[in-house]
Amino acid sequence: MANSKYEYVKDFEQPDPLLPNTWIVVRIDGRGFHKLSDFYKFEKPNDRRALDLMNAAAAEVMKDLPDLCIAYGVSDEFSFVFHPSSQLFERRSAKLVTTIVSTFTAHYIYLWATFFPSNPLKPPFLPSFDGRAVLYPSTRILRDYMSWRQVDCHINNLYNTTFWTMVLQGKMSNTEAEQELKGTVSSDKNEILFKRFGINYNNEEEIYKKGSVLYRQYALQEPKTIQTSTEDEAVVPEAQQSKTQQEKFKKLRRKAQVVIDHVDIIKDEFWERRPWIISGKPGKLLEQN
Amino acid sequence: MANSKYEYVKDFEQPDPLLPNTWIVVRIDGRGFHKLSDFYKFEKPNDRRALDLMNAAAAEVMKDLPDLCIAYGVSDEFSFVFHPSSQLFERRSAKLVTTIVSTFTAHYIYLWATFFPSNPLKPPFLPSFDGRAVLYPSTRILRDYMSWRQVDCHINNLYNTTFWTMVLQGKMSNTEAEQELKGTVSSDKNEILFKRFGINYNNEEEIYKKGSVLYRQYALQEPKTIQTSTEDEAVVPEAQQSKTQQEKFKKLRRKAQVVIDHVDIIKDEFWERRPWIISGKPGKLLEQN
Amino acid sequence: MANSKYEYVKDFEQPDPLLPNTWIVVRIDGRGFHKLSDFYKFEKPNDRRALDLMNAAAAEVMKDLPDLCIAYGVSDEFSFVFHPSSQLFERRSAKLVTTIVSTFTAHYIYLWATFFPSNPLKPPFLPSFDGRAVLYPSTRILRDYMSWRQVDCHINNLYNTTFWTMVLQGKMSNTEAEQELKGTVSSDKNEILFKRFGINYNNEEEIYKKGSVLYRQYALQEPKTIQTSTEDEAVVPEAQQSKTQQEKFKKLRRKAQVVIDHVDIIKDEFWERRPWIISGKPGKLLEQN
Amino acid sequence: MANSKYEYVKDFEQPDPLLPNTWIVVRIDGRGFHKLSDFYKFEKPNDRRALDLMNAAAAEVMKDLPDLCIAYGVSDEFSFVFHPSSQLFERRSAKLVTTIVSTFTAHYIYLWATFFPSNPLKPPFLPSFDGRAVLYPSTRILRDYMSWRQVDCHINNLYNTTFWTMVLQGKMSNTEAEQELKGTVSSDKNEILFKRFGINYNNEEEIYKKGSVLYRQYALQEPKTIQTSTEDEAVVPEAQQSKTQQEKFKKLRRKAQVVIDHVDIIKDEFWERRPWIISGKPGKLLEQN
Repeated sequence: MANSKYEYVKDFEQPDPLLPNTWIVVRIDGRGFHKLSDFYKFEKPNDRRALDLMNAAAAEVMKDLPDLCIAYGVSDEFSFVFHPSSQLFERRSAKLVTTIVSTFTAHYIYLWATFFPSNPLKPPFLPSFDGRAVLYPSTRILRDYMSWRQVDCHINNLYNTTFWTMVLQGKMSNTEAEQELKGTVSSDKNEILFKRFGINYNNEEEIYKKGSVLYRQYALQEPKTIQTSTEDEAVVPEAQQSKTQQEKFKKLRRKAQVVIDHVDIIKDEFWERRPWIISGKPGKLLEQN
Repeated sequence: MANSKYEYVKDFEQPDPLLPNTWIVVRIDGRGFHKLSDFYKFEKPNDRRALDLMNAAAAEVMKDLPDLCIAYGVSDEFSFVFHPSSQLFERRSAKLVTTIVSTFTAHYIYLWATFFPSNPLKPPFLPSFDGRAVLYPSTRILRDYMSWRQVDCHINNLYNTTFWTMVLQGKMSNTEAEQELKGTVSSDKNEILFKRFGINYNNEEEIYKKGSVLYRQYALQEPKTIQTSTEDEAVVPEAQQSKTQQEKFKKLRRKAQVVIDHVDIIKDEFWERRPWIISGKPGKLLEQN
Repeated sequence: MANSKYEYVKDFEQPDPLLPNTWIVVRIDGRGFHKLSDFYKFEKPNDRRALDLMNAAAAEVMKDLPDLCIAYGVSDEFSFVFHPSSQLFERRSAKLVTTIVSTFTAHYIYLWATFFPSNPLKPPFLPSFDGRAVLYPSTRILRDYMSWRQVDCHINNLYNTTFWTMVLQGKMSNTEAEQELKGTVSSDKNEILFKRFGINYNNEEEIYKKGSVLYRQYALQEPKTIQTSTEDEAVVPEAQQSKTQQEKFKKLRRKAQVVIDHVDIIKDEFWERRPWIISGKPGKLLEQN
Repeated sequence: MANSKYEYVKDFEQPDPLLPNTWIVVRIDGRGFHKLSDFYKFEKPNDRRALDLMNAAAAEVMKDLPDLCIAYGVSDEFSFVFHPSSQLFERRSAKLVTTIVSTFTAHYIYLWATFFPSNPLKPPFLPSFDGRAVLYPSTRILRDYMSWRQVDCHINNLYNTTFWTMVLQGKMSNTEAEQELKGTVSSDKNEILFKRFGINYNNEEEIYKKGSVLYRQYALQEPKTIQTSTEDEAVVPEAQQSKTQQEKFKKLRRKAQVVIDHVDIIKDEFWERRPWIISGKPGKLLEQN
């Protein structure tokens, strides 16, 4: 029995290749995590187990897809970054996004019991994530994107830390705390924490203040003293990266360890010491690996 | 600290709304399931547990998203169909596709242990799925899409059943069986099964021959005797379905039971007896629900 | 000298096929025609020469592209409609839209001197047009699109006729006329025209009230007495229209005369008497052709 | 009479914004110019009048759209380049492409009689153009695109010059010439021209060998001696170019003269002496303007 009579329906599939030589950021977000974090009794303002679970799942995604050069997570969101030279799945948008969302979800669900041994999953309330791809045409703008997420992390964490301290330690109602924080700036919140509760925000854990950065680890380099453009290295014309070279790089990347860091990614230092992230060229493997 | 300096990066997010008043099919496929089915020792030619697990996960997706009106699954793929009138997530493509892929994955991983109690998941070999959206502008073409998948199911299952019978019962090597089946038509395969192994293909289980259809159950209607177009009902201009009506329908759909069927969806009868699938208007609830 | 070093830049061209089996409407609009109509002293409220020029250019576009089945023009805009079965330029969006815009512009500029013999074009103030493609997934919605444009024509023409009569015959200032018309409904405007100026709007020329419809002329058919769906005929699966048949139809269409009509296209009658527009199947050629 | 009943059809218009901060190249091509150049008896291998007409029309497009920073033309094609910072028409693809195609066509048709006084246009054989937008994410790749077109110009012109000299002066048939040229490289063609016909290809006119470059003229700068990246200047985050600054730049650009040049645009010198093309910042106006 031939299937040709119906096969014309395949013509309705539309191509969705992403523009070559641009950074691809796939950002995923927890669906309904506000409600979910209540249901599973996440701790406020930050639940360390939930963040560690996010990071563990993200690390598996990084290991599974060596074309990813960096990822950044905060709260229930994670941004995965493909290098401009990546040709994975011919850069088809839906394929890239769904592969990341599904792989992440699979590990998140699988690892749940490890991080929440006493809060078992109860269907139909299973965590899930949506995602989308965004293109960034230059390294400068990609870094601004990363900075945007980390600044957002800081703003939200300072607010949440202050709010929940006022509620949990200060015995204020949610509405009272919200009301008082309306219109305050960072220094106001720092002061509330310090004067009323003796909390120095700077001493809060880095994972809460900075979010989580995942990347492959190689030997760190000295930070540059003279600023020069890394643009040209980063956005190499495809033609100049042969298939063979891409495959070789892919193998080398698989050998590197994926690390989870909680550091400043806004300043140049992070990027200068880890030039492989931007260049796409694997660095020198550490002996420890 | 204001985030405005970096917020311009949001302008790089591109809109991706799907054309209104068209059927949206989100088809998901297992990633690397050929290798995975070896790793977890799936039975050949069909592993009932694996199919039941697919169906169980798909049923959860249907329950989670009442805008889905039908789903069809075969092997490691599933097609989920949104009605043309659906406004879910403003019909944003990535949001719709990733939500389905992630929800499906979450339940698949969660339910694995139920269906494969003796083959526990072993990371990093976790099952995952990719997906894509395809638009079909008329009910006729949507039905042709569904027919395409069911014909494909039949063709593949007849081949696989014959192949694995030749290998497992006939003690042929994979290559020998492949060689002999090259160029055969359906009747040849039926004959091989019957003459050599005494197997009447028609007696094989319906789930293998027909795949699995999931939909909400209401009181069945009599099949039509006079053929009339269901087109006009199906593709109603949005303007004619108010927000209130959409919400009302959504609630009614949540009350209906999602059933898993293994029946012919190529002929008209299936659709005529279940007019709510095409019309998008909930039918009469069964008392049993 | 080989060009291969630079040829990788071709990879940046993105595909833009339009969804098969949907109506394609390419609507073009005059750029800055408000200013332009002042510059070339178009008559108010309607300049017959300008409309005839638009129609003449549109007729040439229709003759050039036999896949177009109907066009509708009003003021400085024109909508050209490709049949769902059209495979012209593999349905590439930019190719279809620019071809129409450029062909239209070429004839508009070329024919200007014929219609405006005493107002020669003065660069850089040359008329030009922009355009876009919009998809309509069913015949019902395509017809609603056409109705939308014709209702718009009526609304604008009634307003403009009343406004300019008040200004030109009533010696009111633009602001006074605008002020008085604010908030009026159709019957108010009809009354102003009739009571103050003795003008019966119904007697205005059809081209102003109805706009212009262009299509290929064949023998008219009797309007249907029993309403039946024309949907199925219209949106035939591609597979059912062979290349040969498409070519044959194309030739037949070239033989038909393109007519310019000013009639109601909202009611069914127009479409029922000219079934070839929706069906895409050429009718019976008139002997006069 | 309200139009609301039909206005829902507007929802079918899909957004088409082009990615911010990328170079936009709109390339237009003559439709059926092979046939057309026969019909209007264009001279072989190059018709100077036809090229001058192309350039004259392109210059008008440049003047009309100050956001264009450079254009390159060869044969019946022209590439228009918008700067990455351009926000014209909110970067809507169809709007940008059709505006260029239509403006170009309008001037081409209008100016025809000036350049071809003895070959008047004969409808329906009017010249027309199609077009498309392509995005280039970095200045390096944009320059490779420009180089690609200029190398193509050279390759085609050397071939055409040799071919037509063999046919017109050498009295060979088209087929004979074609046959002999098959598989030849540049040096072979140069030798045929020189040895058989005494033609030194280097002495051919620059417009034929190099094509035509159009840009706004400002005071030339010294070519750089030390190569530094111009990337960072070029691809400035939008946020850093205020609306006011954009408007100011637009006005300054209108004051500059658009020049038509036939020079090498592959080497760095062209770009270094005219840094305003890449930077998007108007240079110093010449007194002569």
